[in-house]
Amino acid sequence: MKKLLLLITIIPFIGKTQTEDSVFIKRIADEILTNGKAYDLLYQLTKQVGGRLAGSPQFAKAVQWGKVSMKAMGADTAYLQECIVSHWVRGGKDKAVIVEVDHIKQTKNLDALALGNSLGSNGKPVIAEVMAVKDFNEFEKRKDEVKGKIVFFNYPFNPTYISPGKAYGETGVYRRSAASRAAKYGAVAVLIRSLSGSTDNNPHTGVMVYNDSFPKISAAALGLKDADALYELCKKSSVKVSLTTYAKMLPDTTGYNVIGELRGTEFPNQYITVGGHLDSWDVNEGAQDDGAGVVHTIEVMRALKALGYHPKHTIRFVLFANEENSKNGIGGGEKYAAVAKEKNEQHIFALESDAGGFTPRGFGFSMSAAQLQKVQTWLPLLQPYGTEHLANGGGGADIGPLAKNLKTPLSGLNPDGQRYFDLHHSRGDVFENVNKRELLLGAVNMTGLIYLIDKYGL
Amino acid sequence: MKKLLLLITIIPFIGKTQTEDSVFIKRIADEILTNGKAYDLLYQLTKQVGGRLAGSPQFAKAVQWGKVSMKAMGADTAYLQECIVSHWVRGGKDKAVIVEVDHIKQTKNLDALALGNSLGSNGKPVIAEVMAVKDFNEFEKRKDEVKGKIVFFNYPFNPTYISPGKAYGETGVYRRSAASRAAKYGAVAVLIRSLSGSTDNNPHTGVMVYNDSFPKISAAALGLKDADALYELCKKSSVKVSLTTYAKMLPDTTGYNVIGELRGTEFPNQYITVGGHLDSWDVNEGAQDDGAGVVHTIEVMRALKALGYHPKHTIRFVLFANEENSKNGIGGGEKYAAVAKEKNEQHIFALESDAGGFTPRGFGFSMSAAQLQKVQTWLPLLQPYGTEHLANGGGGADIGPLAKNLKTPLSGLNPDGQRYFDLHHSRGDVFENVNKRELLLGAVNMTGLIYLIDKYGL
Repeated sequence: MKKLLLLITIIPFIGKTQTEDSVFIKRIADEILTNGKAYDLLYQLTKQVGGRLAGSPQFAKAVQWGKVSMKAMGADTAYLQECIVSHWVRGGKDKAVIVEVDHIKQTKNLDALALGNSLGSNGKPVIAEVMAVKDFNEFEKRKDEVKGKIVFFNYPFNPTYISPGKAYGETGVYRRSAASRAAKYGAVAVLIRSLSGSTDNNPHTGVMVYNDSFPKISAAALGLKDADALYELCKKSSVKVSLTTYAKMLPDTTGYNVIGELRGTEFPNQYITVGGHLDSWDVNEGAQDDGAGVVHTIEVMRALKALGYHPKHTIRFVLFANEENSKNGIGGGEKYAAVAKEKNEQHIFALESDAGGFTPRGFGFSMSAAQLQKVQTWLPLLQPYGTEHLANGGGGADIGPLAKNLKTPLSGLNPDGQRYFDLHHSRGDVFENVNKRELLLGAVNMTGLIYLIDKYGL
Repeated sequence: MKKLLLLITIIPFIGKTQTEDSVFIKRIADEILTNGKAYDLLYQLTKQVGGRLAGSPQFAKAVQWGKVSMKAMGADTAYLQECIVSHWVRGGKDKAVIVEVDHIKQTKNLDALALGNSLGSNGKPVIAEVMAVKDFNEFEKRKDEVKGKIVFFNYPFNPTYISPGKAYGETGVYRRSAASRAAKYGAVAVLIRSLSGSTDNNPHTGVMVYNDSFPKISAAALGLKDADALYELCKKSSVKVSLTTYAKMLPDTTGYNVIGELRGTEFPNQYITVGGHLDSWDVNEGAQDDGAGVVHTIEVMRALKALGYHPKHTIRFVLFANEENSKNGIGGGEKYAAVAKEKNEQHIFALESDAGGFTPRGFGFSMSAAQLQKVQTWLPLLQPYGTEHLANGGGGADIGPLAKNLKTPLSGLNPDGQRYFDLHHSRGDVFENVNKRELLLGAVNMTGLIYLIDKYGL
């Protein structure tokens, strides 16, 4: 009987709370889908600022834009947090040309981009025979042939993976480490197949890392059509390529995280972080990567403010510096977490959007099982807006250090991923390839999640 | 004890069957994602055939292409089914121009498209003052002002609906019936706001219907930016527009459904239908609407054949004629169901893809509760490929007559819908706006569903 009474007491409460929450989340959705500024802000960031690699003048411009936008969109306070950032410059137009096939002169241009943080050839062509391999396995077997060659790794995306992110994860090792692995056996440069499964020929850059034990040779990515053609050609012919790159690693420099805050009313010293990274590659507008995450972040803030929501906890909206090519232990995310630890701040949750502004399909979480279980009870509240999973595993490169330093529970937005790696780090990542409603719906679901975290804690 | 024994007997069976099914559906996915021809076929249909309204020479070309493709992709038999189709022609380049504002001459072009099945002005400009209204409610209140005017209905998509299809449903009445409702009170032409929520200014055509009781005045849709600008202008000024259209309704003519079959091994006289519509509007390439459905249909067949699957039931793959502007009781879908009824065929299930080639999110079903319950037990088998719902309610315009005539259970593929109405019936619906993997994943989920229906029945 007591139990029954308890149930009778609890059920209307649950009902009322869920209704209150679903009504408020509907207000969030209506506000963002009707008055959302994310798309207009993205236009500004992509078309008026443009590509914005850490250390570049465009990044400095993006920082100013970020601070102004945070204030304009309703931050209680907006400020910059200084940090050390990598400073790599492409230095010129990368050029890869097939110059000889079976000792007969040719001039066939290949669409190529030097990899981020690689060192160029100072504009002098590196001309050598190409040794084309599919993977490291084949490469190691043929290591005796490597000396004096340009090694070309043509490891493809596995199209049978439903998530292209899984294919990206698998191929990443070629971009990161192929140069030094080839240099170890005397290669003079490396080419890699771009980390993409696209139908076009745009090359995709991205960060690589040298192993200091070996010569630092040039490294560039080829568009997929050129990669296929070169690979086929190398199977039956001796092929010479000329690779000219200009890239330079300059001394580390100063950058800034842009931070906007909505001050907490009950627990002002407990922090929730929402963020994306402000920097992008130099060859595009960084629209999906990570302009989308930047404007998602600002939109969550704008919507909460516009609805007159006074958070219990202080919510920080952070546009991180230098995600793309930060080196070990530096960059915006590292600095943010280091300062948080230094100040002994309590960070109860962090959410990142760094997978594009496509239709949201859910969130991934890195937190305790009990916390995840609690979060999963909110699924019915977010489902009407497209969230279909609240799954184990997720976060983001910029908020990762918070988990490492402060054991902060993390989450990452998971948008539909089919188009992301078609555009990612290539010249195709421009404003025109972002859909307004898909972008806004990401912000709707993020704002809903942040509201629930703020209201109920973890 | 008996129960326990039964369980012990059943569980391994369920386990084995589910495993067999999940293994086969994985083979389907691998086959389509690796060797799928849907994207190449779509290239042919959009770039080599192009826009293909019923009755047009391009439609005739599409029919031949369809039959050849069915055979090339493995149909046991491929044939044409003759039917009667509407024959409407645009007849020239539609032109809408603001020619006067507050009695001062202007020349401001508006991006406009005559509505399908509307009658043009024979290339003579209809020049009149514009009466701009938001909706029928305002229109009826101001009916005394209508005479001699061009009435402009500016009823917008509701951005707060999460499914743009709901907004399309709500605004459809303006496209279909605005002309006759305005003509009733003496309007000389109508303009409508395009049925879209896009960020561009492309006008969207689509079918309308005259009420024979009133004069058949010209009707055209405006791009959204022009619609907004005209509406604002009309609020504060007297605006004259000149509308020149050429459209003609020609006598009904002959068209064809293209049918490919895989013959059933156990129940050859029981039919499963998979289809999309072959016709498209004239102003685009009909890539998403419904080139995607056409190539989905052929891909399902190709994949089953390539995997050596011998269906129990006869599966018909149908490219329907004349979905876009069929009139009451004619068109490909009507004919297909009429012939099926005449021959007393047993149609156990029909599936249509006519919502684009975007990432699949599920299927909607129109069938009995018991049948739906059975289908829903298959959700775990399709979830790995993106299907997140097997929901009540769904089908397609072309398979609808099968349900009406033969009570056939229906289903429609539900892809992610955020981009569809940006492109639908506008010049933006071209091959370049279809993503290969999103398209192929639709075929994966459709093939999986058809395999399960064929194996287990309903």
